[in-house]
Amino acid sequence: MKKESSHNWKEKLHEIIYEADTPSGKLFDIILLIAILASILLVMLESVESFDQKHHTLLNISEWVITILFSIEYILRIITVKKPIKYITSFYGIIDLLSTIPKYLSLIFAGTHALVALRALRLLRVFRILKLARYLGASNQLASAIKASRAKISVFLFAVLIASVIFGTIMYLVEGAESGFTNIPKSVYWCIVTLTTVGFGDIAPVTPLGQFIAACIMIMGYGIIAVPTGIVSAEYTKQTNDNNKAPYIPSHPVESDVNSQSCHSCLSENHKDGAKYCYKCGHKLHYD
Amino acid sequence: MKKESSHNWKEKLHEIIYEADTPSGKLFDIILLIAILASILLVMLESVESFDQKHHTLLNISEWVITILFSIEYILRIITVKKPIKYITSFYGIIDLLSTIPKYLSLIFAGTHALVALRALRLLRVFRILKLARYLGASNQLASAIKASRAKISVFLFAVLIASVIFGTIMYLVEGAESGFTNIPKSVYWCIVTLTTVGFGDIAPVTPLGQFIAACIMIMGYGIIAVPTGIVSAEYTKQTNDNNKAPYIPSHPVESDVNSQSCHSCLSENHKDGAKYCYKCGHKLHYD
Amino acid sequence: MKKESSHNWKEKLHEIIYEADTPSGKLFDIILLIAILASILLVMLESVESFDQKHHTLLNISEWVITILFSIEYILRIITVKKPIKYITSFYGIIDLLSTIPKYLSLIFAGTHALVALRALRLLRVFRILKLARYLGASNQLASAIKASRAKISVFLFAVLIASVIFGTIMYLVEGAESGFTNIPKSVYWCIVTLTTVGFGDIAPVTPLGQFIAACIMIMGYGIIAVPTGIVSAEYTKQTNDNNKAPYIPSHPVESDVNSQSCHSCLSENHKDGAKYCYKCGHKLHYD
Amino acid sequence: MKKESSHNWKEKLHEIIYEADTPSGKLFDIILLIAILASILLVMLESVESFDQKHHTLLNISEWVITILFSIEYILRIITVKKPIKYITSFYGIIDLLSTIPKYLSLIFAGTHALVALRALRLLRVFRILKLARYLGASNQLASAIKASRAKISVFLFAVLIASVIFGTIMYLVEGAESGFTNIPKSVYWCIVTLTTVGFGDIAPVTPLGQFIAACIMIMGYGIIAVPTGIVSAEYTKQTNDNNKAPYIPSHPVESDVNSQSCHSCLSENHKDGAKYCYKCGHKLHYD
Repeated sequence: MKKESSHNWKEKLHEIIYEADTPSGKLFDIILLIAILASILLVMLESVESFDQKHHTLLNISEWVITILFSIEYILRIITVKKPIKYITSFYGIIDLLSTIPKYLSLIFAGTHALVALRALRLLRVFRILKLARYLGASNQLASAIKASRAKISVFLFAVLIASVIFGTIMYLVEGAESGFTNIPKSVYWCIVTLTTVGFGDIAPVTPLGQFIAACIMIMGYGIIAVPTGIVSAEYTKQTNDNNKAPYIPSHPVESDVNSQSCHSCLSENHKDGAKYCYKCGHKLHYD
Repeated sequence: MKKESSHNWKEKLHEIIYEADTPSGKLFDIILLIAILASILLVMLESVESFDQKHHTLLNISEWVITILFSIEYILRIITVKKPIKYITSFYGIIDLLSTIPKYLSLIFAGTHALVALRALRLLRVFRILKLARYLGASNQLASAIKASRAKISVFLFAVLIASVIFGTIMYLVEGAESGFTNIPKSVYWCIVTLTTVGFGDIAPVTPLGQFIAACIMIMGYGIIAVPTGIVSAEYTKQTNDNNKAPYIPSHPVESDVNSQSCHSCLSENHKDGAKYCYKCGHKLHYD
Repeated sequence: MKKESSHNWKEKLHEIIYEADTPSGKLFDIILLIAILASILLVMLESVESFDQKHHTLLNISEWVITILFSIEYILRIITVKKPIKYITSFYGIIDLLSTIPKYLSLIFAGTHALVALRALRLLRVFRILKLARYLGASNQLASAIKASRAKISVFLFAVLIASVIFGTIMYLVEGAESGFTNIPKSVYWCIVTLTTVGFGDIAPVTPLGQFIAACIMIMGYGIIAVPTGIVSAEYTKQTNDNNKAPYIPSHPVESDVNSQSCHSCLSENHKDGAKYCYKCGHKLHYD
Repeated sequence: MKKESSHNWKEKLHEIIYEADTPSGKLFDIILLIAILASILLVMLESVESFDQKHHTLLNISEWVITILFSIEYILRIITVKKPIKYITSFYGIIDLLSTIPKYLSLIFAGTHALVALRALRLLRVFRILKLARYLGASNQLASAIKASRAKISVFLFAVLIASVIFGTIMYLVEGAESGFTNIPKSVYWCIVTLTTVGFGDIAPVTPLGQFIAACIMIMGYGIIAVPTGIVSAEYTKQTNDNNKAPYIPSHPVESDVNSQSCHSCLSENHKDGAKYCYKCGHKLHYD
């Protein structure tokens, strides 16, 4: 009997921590969201030297409070999930560990305190939490348009990289060391800066021939920026058309029939609304 | 009887100030437009030190003329509207106040003269005035395309912000203070500068690893600029298609059936042409 | 009889100079094209000081040859056209004069030689000459897509300008003079540099608040670049669709049924192939 | 009999080197790919002075190994192809030679060692090798969209160039030498840098009029970037629609029915799957 109650206790915690269907689950997510944002703000303020010197003790105490809270969350996540190894080795599991451990390490090793900044990676969890928000549909459509044009964008970026290496090498031969093109990797870096129309200006060609080639690279970059844009535009237009053609269905029907649950056993997500078993591992989903 | 004539007098002024259907209403709008542009020009010239030193008296007198004109307009707007509180607390009401009051304040407090520049906010009223122009249709279509893709663009910009915080933190760890990445907020600022392909070059990575990560950020920025473009393109294409599919209707029919009137009572706009009552509060619209 | 032969002589010259249907007309256009490109190259080389000092005499002689050739062309254009005033006051008439006269002026006034560079404006005639090339269709489609979205792009650029003035003024108030934001016009200039993602870096914010506002401006600029792109994309897609829907017609049918003639009397262009009378003034078109 | 066996030997080598249908052909392509990437990495490391000084001997030996391997490949390609002159004068033939010969030349002429960097051009062969990869379809669609909008993009880039020359000349007249606009070519270079929104900032206008014109150029550049994007978007959308309309055919059917073979005689590619004779010269394709 005792084991069952412990089971129930774990299940309830799982529902609070991993899901967002219940009021307490939503509350947990909101508190987590605030804690993450507060911890990022803390890391930022700490990095500003003038601020850190004034309020060092306050910042340090807050750091420890946040770290202990995250540690508790991490431990609870391990306890309540069925297969802890799966969580620990999962993407979010590693991030959760990386954002908790540097503070403890800084007690032992002196120089590692800066690694606390790794906590910024926690921001990625914000995407996960926001799944419950009304932006779910929009972000799903975004994701699927990017997914559909992934192959084409890869080919495009690959071509951009090759062009950068070739033009970077040519610029190295043409400009030489005195104008900042001291070696080929730097020259390739400059070429990427130019081709993507960022244009820092920390390195800039000075010879007439170098400036001529640079002009060609810029016009090329200006012309080919159209390519990824065209790809994504066409993909979006197609998706919108497909949605329009389907009869008797509101404009974005596909995104709304998934819920925010995650399987206890395999942590997979995007279960259909009302589903009773995980579509991946067959484990039972919720307990009423 | 006297009260009715005062009522009539107020109504006529309301029609002149708030609407643009009558010749005098149009004239008022054009004079207001010129006054706003002149006041902006004045503020600009005043900020150029060499010009201000030469023509200080002239500029000061013109300032006072413009300020008094705007004050009169502000008072008239309060008098002629049915619910003055609603106007005063409205968006344009606050801007009108902000663009009038700094000149008076500069008489009392010495340092506040620079706030006269807040008058630039008045430019926003230009949008309101231009509603009567032939660009009404185009700007409506623009607005509705942006509105329709608002959620997606928000998700996108939110993702860009999170990426900036994460990469900014990483760059702070990699580059360190000697190349300008002195703290995380500055590093995040640099990351936004780079990701949006602006690239000032006031801060630039100098270590090979930093330059490599910068190159990744740039290529990412170059690739994802396609996303908002794709969203708006698809939305526009859809709108254009929808207009084309509707039978027997010229290409942009929807925008032309609103007029430039605003309700005396609730200040709401976009009334249908020929409407006699406000569609929001039911108040009678015009008096013939 | 003599008058008629002079009439014929003028007509033939008109056909050679203004049109491109006959072999001699095409030859004239090609020679003119080469002369224009050569004259631009000359102006460029002359502006490079080290080159000018070496080959000054050669450059000067070539200048005079080109100038005299252009003068002859200008006089012939005036003689052969029916209404010379119309040509002289037309867009190309003014450019032709502006690109010829500075060399003569430099004989009288010493400092005006640099104005020879105005000849670069002649490059615009290249568009006119290229009308006969196979790129006619593509450039027509380009022009019509831009024309169709002109109103929307105007509204957009107008909004960008207003945003620049407002944010420029705010940055002037926030940053102050020590970081380059010395006056509002300069601040507005910086804002345009930033909003269009050019980012020279000659002026850059240094205060944290200024950098925060700058980041907002950049993200705004990055997001709204999608708007004009979306407009033109939708316009193009529509045009392509319209062409596709029309039955039994090759892909770009509309552009090919105009010829390169221009009316003797009113200089209007884009006459239908085989047209005998000017569609604008009714004057007879060609003489066989 | 002997001649026939030599014929067979050549044919087998041709299949390995020029094609990718057999396991050994695929293996050859993968080894070549690795060799190319290794050689590029080598050239990059060599250009970094600090690295070169430490590991000079190792780098030199590796250079010779790569060069000899490429030489063998070059000779084998000449031997196994039917018309060696055609290969030698082909695009890839010239690149293969250019990437092999500088190392030998550096034995005779001292200063030519830097030309080894020309080997970066070999990266272009990567495109050829990747034809067998699963990205074939995506890159074909990319290529055909670019091809279809080639004329329009040419017209556009030509217009950008003309605008750059005209505005560059105007900026030269307005700004003069003291702010970096020392001659017209440099001024045109600056104009391209600005129009393409790269914005290095190595040259920047300082006079108010110059900054005003610069602002106009930027806004123009910001507005017209929409044009190539619109072109490619429309082209993509059209292609996607065309694919959708065709009945009973999977989404990208056209790209999959070519194979990776190349004709022994004329080196032409993109043969239909299962083709027995070259569609260009009629030569027999494979030998089973």
